[in-house]
Amino acid sequence: MAKEKSAPAVKIIPLGGLHEIGKNTCVFEFKDEIILVDAGLGFPKDDMHGVNIVLPDMTYLQENSHKIKGMIVTHGHEDHIGGIAYHLKQFDIPVIHGPRLAMALLQGKLEEAGVAERTVLKTVGPRDQVKVGSYFQVEFIRNTHSISDSFTIAIRTPIGVIIHTGDFKVDHTPVDGEFFDFQRLAEYGEKGILCLLSDSTNAEVPGHTPSEQSVYPNLDRVFSQAPGRVLVTTFASSVHRLNIILQLAQKHKRVVCVVGRSMLNVIAQARNLGYIKCPDNLFEPLHAAKHLPPEKVVILTTGSQGEPLAALTRISQGEHRQIKIREGDTVVFSANPIPGNTIAVVNTIDRLMMQGANVIYGRHQGIHVSGHGAQEDHKLMLALTRPKFFMPVHGEHRMLVQHSKTAQSMGISADNMVVTDNGDIVELSEQSIKVIDRVPSGIELVDRAGVVHHEVLKERQQLAGNGVVTVAAAVSWEGKLLAKPAIHLRGVVSGVEKSLLEKLVIRTIEATLSDHWTDFAKPLNGTQTDINWTGLQGEIQGDLQRLARRELQSRPLLVFLLQNPEEPPVKVRGRRRRSTAKVAS
Amino acid sequence: MAKEKSAPAVKIIPLGGLHEIGKNTCVFEFKDEIILVDAGLGFPKDDMHGVNIVLPDMTYLQENSHKIKGMIVTHGHEDHIGGIAYHLKQFDIPVIHGPRLAMALLQGKLEEAGVAERTVLKTVGPRDQVKVGSYFQVEFIRNTHSISDSFTIAIRTPIGVIIHTGDFKVDHTPVDGEFFDFQRLAEYGEKGILCLLSDSTNAEVPGHTPSEQSVYPNLDRVFSQAPGRVLVTTFASSVHRLNIILQLAQKHKRVVCVVGRSMLNVIAQARNLGYIKCPDNLFEPLHAAKHLPPEKVVILTTGSQGEPLAALTRISQGEHRQIKIREGDTVVFSANPIPGNTIAVVNTIDRLMMQGANVIYGRHQGIHVSGHGAQEDHKLMLALTRPKFFMPVHGEHRMLVQHSKTAQSMGISADNMVVTDNGDIVELSEQSIKVIDRVPSGIELVDRAGVVHHEVLKERQQLAGNGVVTVAAAVSWEGKLLAKPAIHLRGVVSGVEKSLLEKLVIRTIEATLSDHWTDFAKPLNGTQTDINWTGLQGEIQGDLQRLARRELQSRPLLVFLLQNPEEPPVKVRGRRRRSTAKVAS
Repeated sequence: MAKEKSAPAVKIIPLGGLHEIGKNTCVFEFKDEIILVDAGLGFPKDDMHGVNIVLPDMTYLQENSHKIKGMIVTHGHEDHIGGIAYHLKQFDIPVIHGPRLAMALLQGKLEEAGVAERTVLKTVGPRDQVKVGSYFQVEFIRNTHSISDSFTIAIRTPIGVIIHTGDFKVDHTPVDGEFFDFQRLAEYGEKGILCLLSDSTNAEVPGHTPSEQSVYPNLDRVFSQAPGRVLVTTFASSVHRLNIILQLAQKHKRVVCVVGRSMLNVIAQARNLGYIKCPDNLFEPLHAAKHLPPEKVVILTTGSQGEPLAALTRISQGEHRQIKIREGDTVVFSANPIPGNTIAVVNTIDRLMMQGANVIYGRHQGIHVSGHGAQEDHKLMLALTRPKFFMPVHGEHRMLVQHSKTAQSMGISADNMVVTDNGDIVELSEQSIKVIDRVPSGIELVDRAGVVHHEVLKERQQLAGNGVVTVAAAVSWEGKLLAKPAIHLRGVVSGVEKSLLEKLVIRTIEATLSDHWTDFAKPLNGTQTDINWTGLQGEIQGDLQRLARRELQSRPLLVFLLQNPEEPPVKVRGRRRRSTAKVAS
Repeated sequence: MAKEKSAPAVKIIPLGGLHEIGKNTCVFEFKDEIILVDAGLGFPKDDMHGVNIVLPDMTYLQENSHKIKGMIVTHGHEDHIGGIAYHLKQFDIPVIHGPRLAMALLQGKLEEAGVAERTVLKTVGPRDQVKVGSYFQVEFIRNTHSISDSFTIAIRTPIGVIIHTGDFKVDHTPVDGEFFDFQRLAEYGEKGILCLLSDSTNAEVPGHTPSEQSVYPNLDRVFSQAPGRVLVTTFASSVHRLNIILQLAQKHKRVVCVVGRSMLNVIAQARNLGYIKCPDNLFEPLHAAKHLPPEKVVILTTGSQGEPLAALTRISQGEHRQIKIREGDTVVFSANPIPGNTIAVVNTIDRLMMQGANVIYGRHQGIHVSGHGAQEDHKLMLALTRPKFFMPVHGEHRMLVQHSKTAQSMGISADNMVVTDNGDIVELSEQSIKVIDRVPSGIELVDRAGVVHHEVLKERQQLAGNGVVTVAAAVSWEGKLLAKPAIHLRGVVSGVEKSLLEKLVIRTIEATLSDHWTDFAKPLNGTQTDINWTGLQGEIQGDLQRLARRELQSRPLLVFLLQNPEEPPVKVRGRRRRSTAKVAS
């Protein structure tokens, strides 16, 4: 009963979002009930060969799925909702509450993955309150961000109120006129907030993040000066930016061709729900726009991050079937490269320029602003909420450290905050906040065919760096080569002649067979022998691996395939005859 | 004789330096004589698996090596001298003229590569003039850059003076007191310069690049506030920065442990030649410094770009044998990440912080400045030289475009400049500048074992993304499997059971053999058959490839190794007997 005596506490377990990959999944647990906030996905690093997406380790939720009472979604960005369809294949989530736009985007994802029936989506509006399970009551507080319909949430728990900011910036002149609900936040602050979890993305950036509106005049100038077509790229999910671009197209009497699946999807959903308002005849399909004068056309396209398969990337490579760059085209990058994408983006810009486009890009142009608040915005959030405890979230380690310093500069004691890692179990009580333990954490890598395990990735890394040498040899039950070994090199740099390499391989296998055959072949009776083929295979593989390293001056993966007839030969009339190899079919 | 009538012209052929890889090699050719300016190397992009260095295509110089009269080196950076040792293996360069520090660093490289006897290194000082061949006379004009002893060069040719800036910034307060020789540049400008080739690295950056001296007070503040050891990382070749760090160590009464081969080499050479002045007892080996109080120690280390094998990277991973991070350590990144290295650098920072270090990094700290001039510096260069023709060099395409716009803003006509690509032949006469043709260009990838050809790289990329499936099967001269095929998967994600996969492979091979055997096996005479083993191998390989794609839902490389006994079986006493497989040894 010792457990009963300890102060009641909420466990907070960030499963993702505290490093660059496996974004934004947070568990809140009280007694035997869990609610989840968001479940995003991440994108692979360069050495994660062949990996399409990255998910946080969900072992803890799989093992505790009976506790899950529901999920809260703060907004519709991929790094907050993109993981849900994958998780629903592993465990049920009884109900998901979230804003209209996010729920509409999520519905499509769940249907596509065939898991829509595993949960119930419920739509909320500003200041709506929902009860999830017996202990948690969640209120949705309008905030401002780069996507429409985004919320900060207040989670009332038996021990006090926890505020989770979600992603936010402080935009006093939001494009959609939906102001940040500071009143409600301040009210919670006045009543007393136990803990604040706050977005740390721009914790390293001094000052304020400018309003989304600030890009309007700069993009307007670009549109005004463009002599021909305008191609604009931005994040498909930046609904406010899309709105601005569509407004400018109307103002400058240009039709808009939308290119790219995700862009088409977001615009359709956002128009459907009224987050984007524009007339139907603003849009034209590409084939129709071909016949219009270039100064009457805007092409709104994916590819702002230089993604290999995105439309703008293919355009820059001259490989897009319908769109070729012509003299007079203006291409606008209304997005900054995310670190890691820089090279891909600048290469795309170079290629577009070489084809004759005037490319507008870079921080000095004022055609992009961040969707996340900077240090002074973080201070405002802390000032409005005045939390007792603080836990920076949504950022890499150094951003969390910087955000905690910002909080300390406003008088919150370092003892009252935790800088956590994915998988940490944070125990929050009325008296304290501390990391008490860990759950399995890490990442799960997924490619087209399924989960890419660590060993597979290691093999791919070795294959990538050094290639593979394959040798196959059939060996008889008498320990002789049955045929000339076959040798194949892929991805290997070799200064050695093929014929010499063959000779060396044969010599090595024959030497191994002659030196070690008796180690692996034990006589059973007069006519039969028991042969440890696996051991023999390993012995030859080892010798060939050494040969490859010595002769090729590199470390290719060496695969040695040993074949042996399935049955030993039987003696017939004093001479050995091979049995017909039996092969299962 | 038409050739004689055309105006005499200098051909300028940039072989490298106009994209991110294969840096800085420029050919100047007049009649049958060639001089080279610099020969650098580049580093591989992420998808150049296993590649260590990148060199420009040197076909043109190999084919015209008899014309080469000599090379000019402007300064000692790797992207200006790093390629020379490789090129000397392919063609001779009679003489190389360059500054003392660059020649000392180059000498070491040539000796290491065993090619020091293939050329003669000659050292020059400020305003020295050297004659190379019959037509070119080169004067060395002191400039300011991040490495000591750097030059802009004036090339007098039969048709006029060409200025090549080399790498430069405009630093009016150089650390070593060696001022930019504006007087000499202005004198050339006054007399008339035919063409300017100018460094475009920071062409996108507005304003002036700050003086190297500006980092001194900021690093001084860091040293003052550090409670324990200071670990500093910067580019090994930034001699001025090293000087500042060593001065600060002296000022703060700390000894310096230098870690990392390139750092040790540059410091040794620079001290030897007097570019770095400090007492011997400033330096201590690591094992001796271990016994000193932490506030008496500076560790100067490589790894500012998060290079996987550099000392600081290994320290951050806890894998350095001698250095472990402790509480109280301050780690200073006195360098910005080069685009493409950002993720590696921030991951290193995160890991160092997690181990308890206070890490000082980022643009806001004022602890790093660029070695290249920005837009206003470019204007000063143009203003001093007032060239008739202009050719931006040393930068990616968009930087060259921006640099040419800067030149146009100062009144140079767009007709009087060229934006070039690697391999372009620029014809410069007294009347015009234009691109007239191209020579083979591109890149050569080198790994430990030699040149990585395009096909090998393609194979590595496929191996990296999808892994490899290897199947080996021995087939008799009757078209039957001699043994159970061996199957091996590496780097492949498969949801298919191994035993099922084996069955499918056997079924596929047997089906191919039964359907197509007669296509490949032609009876020669009563006892012999001529079998097209290569054709059969290809047929089975194709069928297995289709099987793999269908069953594994991915596109692994499929290697199929067919083995067959070397000789057909001969009939003995009415029954077939296998010949003993003859195997060459």
